[in-house]
Amino acid sequence: MSNGDIFLGEVIGTAILILFGAGVVAAVVLNYSKAKDGGWIVIAFGWGFGVMAGAYTAAPLSGAHLNPAVTIGIAIDTGKWDKVPIYIAGQMVGAMLGAVLCWLVYYAQFQANAEEEMAQPTLGIFSTTPTIRNVVANLMTEIIATIGLVLPLLAFGLTKGLGESGTTILMVSFLVVGIGLSLGGPTGYAINPARDLGPRIVHALLPIPNKGTSDWGYAWIPVVGPLIGGALAGVIFNAAF
Amino acid sequence: MSNGDIFLGEVIGTAILILFGAGVVAAVVLNYSKAKDGGWIVIAFGWGFGVMAGAYTAAPLSGAHLNPAVTIGIAIDTGKWDKVPIYIAGQMVGAMLGAVLCWLVYYAQFQANAEEEMAQPTLGIFSTTPTIRNVVANLMTEIIATIGLVLPLLAFGLTKGLGESGTTILMVSFLVVGIGLSLGGPTGYAINPARDLGPRIVHALLPIPNKGTSDWGYAWIPVVGPLIGGALAGVIFNAAF
Amino acid sequence: MSNGDIFLGEVIGTAILILFGAGVVAAVVLNYSKAKDGGWIVIAFGWGFGVMAGAYTAAPLSGAHLNPAVTIGIAIDTGKWDKVPIYIAGQMVGAMLGAVLCWLVYYAQFQANAEEEMAQPTLGIFSTTPTIRNVVANLMTEIIATIGLVLPLLAFGLTKGLGESGTTILMVSFLVVGIGLSLGGPTGYAINPARDLGPRIVHALLPIPNKGTSDWGYAWIPVVGPLIGGALAGVIFNAAF
Amino acid sequence: MSNGDIFLGEVIGTAILILFGAGVVAAVVLNYSKAKDGGWIVIAFGWGFGVMAGAYTAAPLSGAHLNPAVTIGIAIDTGKWDKVPIYIAGQMVGAMLGAVLCWLVYYAQFQANAEEEMAQPTLGIFSTTPTIRNVVANLMTEIIATIGLVLPLLAFGLTKGLGESGTTILMVSFLVVGIGLSLGGPTGYAINPARDLGPRIVHALLPIPNKGTSDWGYAWIPVVGPLIGGALAGVIFNAAF
Repeated sequence: MSNGDIFLGEVIGTAILILFGAGVVAAVVLNYSKAKDGGWIVIAFGWGFGVMAGAYTAAPLSGAHLNPAVTIGIAIDTGKWDKVPIYIAGQMVGAMLGAVLCWLVYYAQFQANAEEEMAQPTLGIFSTTPTIRNVVANLMTEIIATIGLVLPLLAFGLTKGLGESGTTILMVSFLVVGIGLSLGGPTGYAINPARDLGPRIVHALLPIPNKGTSDWGYAWIPVVGPLIGGALAGVIFNAAF
Repeated sequence: MSNGDIFLGEVIGTAILILFGAGVVAAVVLNYSKAKDGGWIVIAFGWGFGVMAGAYTAAPLSGAHLNPAVTIGIAIDTGKWDKVPIYIAGQMVGAMLGAVLCWLVYYAQFQANAEEEMAQPTLGIFSTTPTIRNVVANLMTEIIATIGLVLPLLAFGLTKGLGESGTTILMVSFLVVGIGLSLGGPTGYAINPARDLGPRIVHALLPIPNKGTSDWGYAWIPVVGPLIGGALAGVIFNAAF
Repeated sequence: MSNGDIFLGEVIGTAILILFGAGVVAAVVLNYSKAKDGGWIVIAFGWGFGVMAGAYTAAPLSGAHLNPAVTIGIAIDTGKWDKVPIYIAGQMVGAMLGAVLCWLVYYAQFQANAEEEMAQPTLGIFSTTPTIRNVVANLMTEIIATIGLVLPLLAFGLTKGLGESGTTILMVSFLVVGIGLSLGGPTGYAINPARDLGPRIVHALLPIPNKGTSDWGYAWIPVVGPLIGGALAGVIFNAAF
Repeated sequence: MSNGDIFLGEVIGTAILILFGAGVVAAVVLNYSKAKDGGWIVIAFGWGFGVMAGAYTAAPLSGAHLNPAVTIGIAIDTGKWDKVPIYIAGQMVGAMLGAVLCWLVYYAQFQANAEEEMAQPTLGIFSTTPTIRNVVANLMTEIIATIGLVLPLLAFGLTKGLGESGTTILMVSFLVVGIGLSLGGPTGYAINPARDLGPRIVHALLPIPNKGTSDWGYAWIPVVGPLIGGALAGVIFNAAF
């Protein structure tokens, strides 16, 4: 895979992932959305199928990491680090592009939200926020949840026949649904630094009226936590398998 | 594939798609339905499994496009345009047939709806309506959502082993679930001109009492938007892959 | 496949199907169930995964029809009728066994239901009931819904690679989820004469206190409708494919 | 497979299973969780995808039993008993580890729960509790539900092509979703002695404030019931297949 293909694949794939993922939160929280109050099951499956859509699209170009924590985990497992910056650059650009696309899809809803008497904060559509602020607890949640993503993901490659049948990405998608359902309660499961930081930057830049804070004080946790989690998953995988 | 098989396959497959898809909206919105108020998760999975049912049935005959936006995207990708009119003709006939079948399945509910003191409008069962009317925003939503359908769908063909295992259609079905969950909030995700226009014609023709408007003023958006989106997906796919 | 294996396979498979299917309705409607009021999405997936559990178990013995409408549809397609009585006998015995097992699983709940001040009718756990009684409309619903099951099911066999990967039964399970979501609203989707008649007999026989009517006046519709639908699907399949 | 790999695989796999499984109950019942009141569909899919995550991770090391009832069922089927103690030891250690990880993920929520005016009991996050206490009925529920798990699971191995495509574990995951949806209402579906006993021990040991009873009077039922069910499934499988 050429550097250009890797970059392009990660941009397109992560953009689709964030379009779907930010989209499903917009769908559930914004007024004038048909999915308003659709519940946690809608959010978890929306993110999971976003992974599916983005990963199958990116796979032929870049192998579809779409997540710096995955890239780090794989680098630790394989010992190959030279492509890591290209992957992460593509993921960040893609995540920002996807956040913009989500804003365009829900443009009229974002405008209407601002006109409501009580405009809701919009950051939760773009990035994660914890229900209880606690640096240690929030970090722990993101670290363990990311191990729960990257360790099984690395192990998928060991299952005979799975890669050949082309359905591995489907398994990863359901894995992401499961992480959302089970481990997303405390922090909203970033488990992906690009997924959180890219859209947060876009949230800060976009001219959304009454958009509320971009909460930069919390922004480092969904970056550092998933990176630690991905690295730990790589270490555990190398040690155990 | 002969022209007759293509036409027949698209008619049967699109009819099944619309039977399930219009059916699940009827199930959720009509009184005297056991799925009444089943929520957005029911609607998104109902449409997705409708794609599965229709596409597996149509696949041996026509390859199962079931959607003019998909047909256009594939034509741009492959450069072959001669079968396009047959595909679209079959899709339109099938979509109309499916809408009639849905009406028959929910016949007693449609009759009872008319007898209620406050009859609900029935167009939403057949065709899409936006929550906020805004030509630019609605078009943008349909264009981006359709790119979100057709671009991954074209990329599925590049995943090694997927087609051989026969599970590609399952992936497309989950992709449609995901689009519904994530991108369906503003306009109800037509993402398919035949899916919207065919049932709208049927809605206008059927003797449903108190059926309300067929809203022809909006009808061009879910035709034009998805066609642009499908074409753009084909262009992006050709450029990037 | 020997006659004994076919009978045994259909008994075991249909028993598991009904155990899960009747079970999920019990789970959602009975008091003192943790799934109480779980909604239509729970019911549709419960039935679908019941098909999966029963069909994968029966498949090595009998090929897993589990449904007289499927057996009839296949017989019309293949022209082979000699095993049909054995299949249907196994399905009826299995459906009755499954209904008894469901009663045992929810025994304490059935007892508690009778002690409530307002005991709920229990037939809906075992068999289908329409929301609006209308012979023509109810038959039409069951016929079309069964075509929606059997026609795609017959077509699955034509998809290259699907049978070899062993995942066809999963597709059928999702198809049944889809039929439930989309077409189950008016009558509760029997789409299987054994699924309805077997448990209805068991409901009439079991010593459930305050169990309410077994509604024999309606019992022929979920038998005749699905049989007509299965036969029509076989005819359409033979004509079109 | 070496004894060390089996033990390690079962520890890791069961830990992931319980992390997800206990996690999804925490997500739905604890205050300050984004999935609060997500409903039974969230719980059933959370446990099912927990099986998927744990089993794909354990599979290359131990074959992924993750459940003493499965280990017993397989031992009866194959007649090989020598590895049984290692499997069960790994499952117990893993289940306890997973319960601790779940507590860490939801640490801030567990602390906040204790501060609430009316602290909820927390045992239900770790272990099962029946809605109606009735030894015979509760045992019957667990026995039948475990047969519903182990009998199809043993039969999956007979489906041609399923193992080769690597998707068998996905089927088991959906099977567990189905058991939860359909048969989990009365007792909360332990169907796995390690899943219940390990986290119950951890619940008794952890310094969770206001945690409530560990209910040791009930603890033997979700151990004995699933063991009987797994054994019966093995006997039925050997007799019928």
